[in-house]
Amino acid sequence: MSSIGELGEFGLITRLTDRLPQGPAVELGPGDDAAVVRAPDGRVVATTDLLVEGRHFRRDWSGPYEIGCKAVAQNLADVVAMGARPTVLLVGLAVPPETPVEWAEQLYAGLAEECELAGCSVAGGDVVAAPQITLAITALGDLDGEPPLTRAGAAPGDLVAIRGRLGHSAAGLELLRSGRTAPAELIEAHRRPRPPYTAGAEARAMGATALMDVSDGLLQDLGHIAKASGVRVEVDTADVPVPRVLGRGGLRHVLTGGEDHGFAATIPSSAVPPASWTVIGRVTEGAGVLVDGGSYQGGGWDHFRE
Amino acid sequence: MSSIGELGEFGLITRLTDRLPQGPAVELGPGDDAAVVRAPDGRVVATTDLLVEGRHFRRDWSGPYEIGCKAVAQNLADVVAMGARPTVLLVGLAVPPETPVEWAEQLYAGLAEECELAGCSVAGGDVVAAPQITLAITALGDLDGEPPLTRAGAAPGDLVAIRGRLGHSAAGLELLRSGRTAPAELIEAHRRPRPPYTAGAEARAMGATALMDVSDGLLQDLGHIAKASGVRVEVDTADVPVPRVLGRGGLRHVLTGGEDHGFAATIPSSAVPPASWTVIGRVTEGAGVLVDGGSYQGGGWDHFRE
Repeated sequence: MSSIGELGEFGLITRLTDRLPQGPAVELGPGDDAAVVRAPDGRVVATTDLLVEGRHFRRDWSGPYEIGCKAVAQNLADVVAMGARPTVLLVGLAVPPETPVEWAEQLYAGLAEECELAGCSVAGGDVVAAPQITLAITALGDLDGEPPLTRAGAAPGDLVAIRGRLGHSAAGLELLRSGRTAPAELIEAHRRPRPPYTAGAEARAMGATALMDVSDGLLQDLGHIAKASGVRVEVDTADVPVPRVLGRGGLRHVLTGGEDHGFAATIPSSAVPPASWTVIGRVTEGAGVLVDGGSYQGGGWDHFRE
Repeated sequence: MSSIGELGEFGLITRLTDRLPQGPAVELGPGDDAAVVRAPDGRVVATTDLLVEGRHFRRDWSGPYEIGCKAVAQNLADVVAMGARPTVLLVGLAVPPETPVEWAEQLYAGLAEECELAGCSVAGGDVVAAPQITLAITALGDLDGEPPLTRAGAAPGDLVAIRGRLGHSAAGLELLRSGRTAPAELIEAHRRPRPPYTAGAEARAMGATALMDVSDGLLQDLGHIAKASGVRVEVDTADVPVPRVLGRGGLRHVLTGGEDHGFAATIPSSAVPPASWTVIGRVTEGAGVLVDGGSYQGGGWDHFRE
């Protein structure tokens, strides 16, 4: 089994890009100075995230395939959270030269698999040597003529609704940290988030006034909507679904756990959400986030303070 | 002087993004799940690069301002090399929590300064904690209705022309490695490349058939054009300008030194290049790159094999 250093930069790039999905959004793919990507809307939605080994993933806890899936998922969720359709990714990989080529191939298999779930292509990237594995993903998307769904549109009278898993990733991380391997569902949720990529279209169909991807923790992210919209968000915990698998502390994980990349939206009170969405509160005049009418002493995720 | 860890993720992001240029290309800038960027052409040119501390820069050799300039320059050069106009950057920064806030502020001042040279904005980004500083830059550009200038359009009979500094960065790196500080011009060239951002428009005006940014070394990059176009590129060293400041070994640096981000183009034999371009050879039938009619035993840059 050869290492990346033995194969060399250009050999590695050829090996990896040969198997990446190239959909109709890619007018010119990997191999030139830059890619050319179709942006029929005349605007492009763009987001970037860094994942650093030891901080965002551990190679003894997650395999390369899962790391690839997770890196893509968190970026595509950001595009979907704008109400946009993901079109392409750019993938930057910093990797130690002694890493087996197969590890990188598995990583790219995960990237490709998650892209295909969202109908997205990989248009380009960069591979460099570094002591530590770092993934830098940029995702682009198209708005198909619609206005973006920002965090700033929530208005008093709206309802607050959520979609997708919440709290599972944080619960799984807690298990891994304490050396446990069950429930497997939670470990798996930490290794590979499953953002419901249809959430953007569903939110638009409901007439959503704001939409965001829950990456830092539900309450913290609702706080972002409250601040950007100049409103208060009130959550009723009696309406918050807490799956039994989350066990003791389940509500805390749902309210504050990040990295599942579920979605939170504000929708008009007249909207009739599909069954996959759950209404958990409302938007009122004021500021901040109230939980059952009071403040919540929980917290969320700060990358420098965890 | 406080550290990034003390300020925290959201405090740092606010501090840094407040001073970034926000031009007309940015419809929605930093602060939401993703940015919304104007792409009036209906296509977007996109490229991404990683810069890793110790590999692409050293904090004892380059200050944060210069590192910021360099990171932006190498990405904007890739956009210009497609014949496109840079519109926005996305900036991912991985940084140790104990890093002084001022260091990051200087880095972003460099990013902003280099962006302004090319009329480009910063539309978004990500900041995470990591043991080592890594910069992940993505640059987007607009083609303004023109076809992209790829590496694949060179045809036998074309001339080969170059523009901008070549070899200076490699010569400066050699000085730094041997502990020397003069000539200052070369040290400065290594710390901060100066891509001529007008090269894309100039190449288009000449009717260029191929254009690329010289990042790995002139001969190696001409080899990329030869391969992509299915042609041979022949270089006459008598026509290659070797500035006196490069001293002994100057020609070798010009032919093989990377990271100056000058440009190489193939142009029709009827073209009349402006004075800032120098014709150094021609395109013929065949494959590969010939130097004075023979093969060159030099080499270029492989990120895993340097």
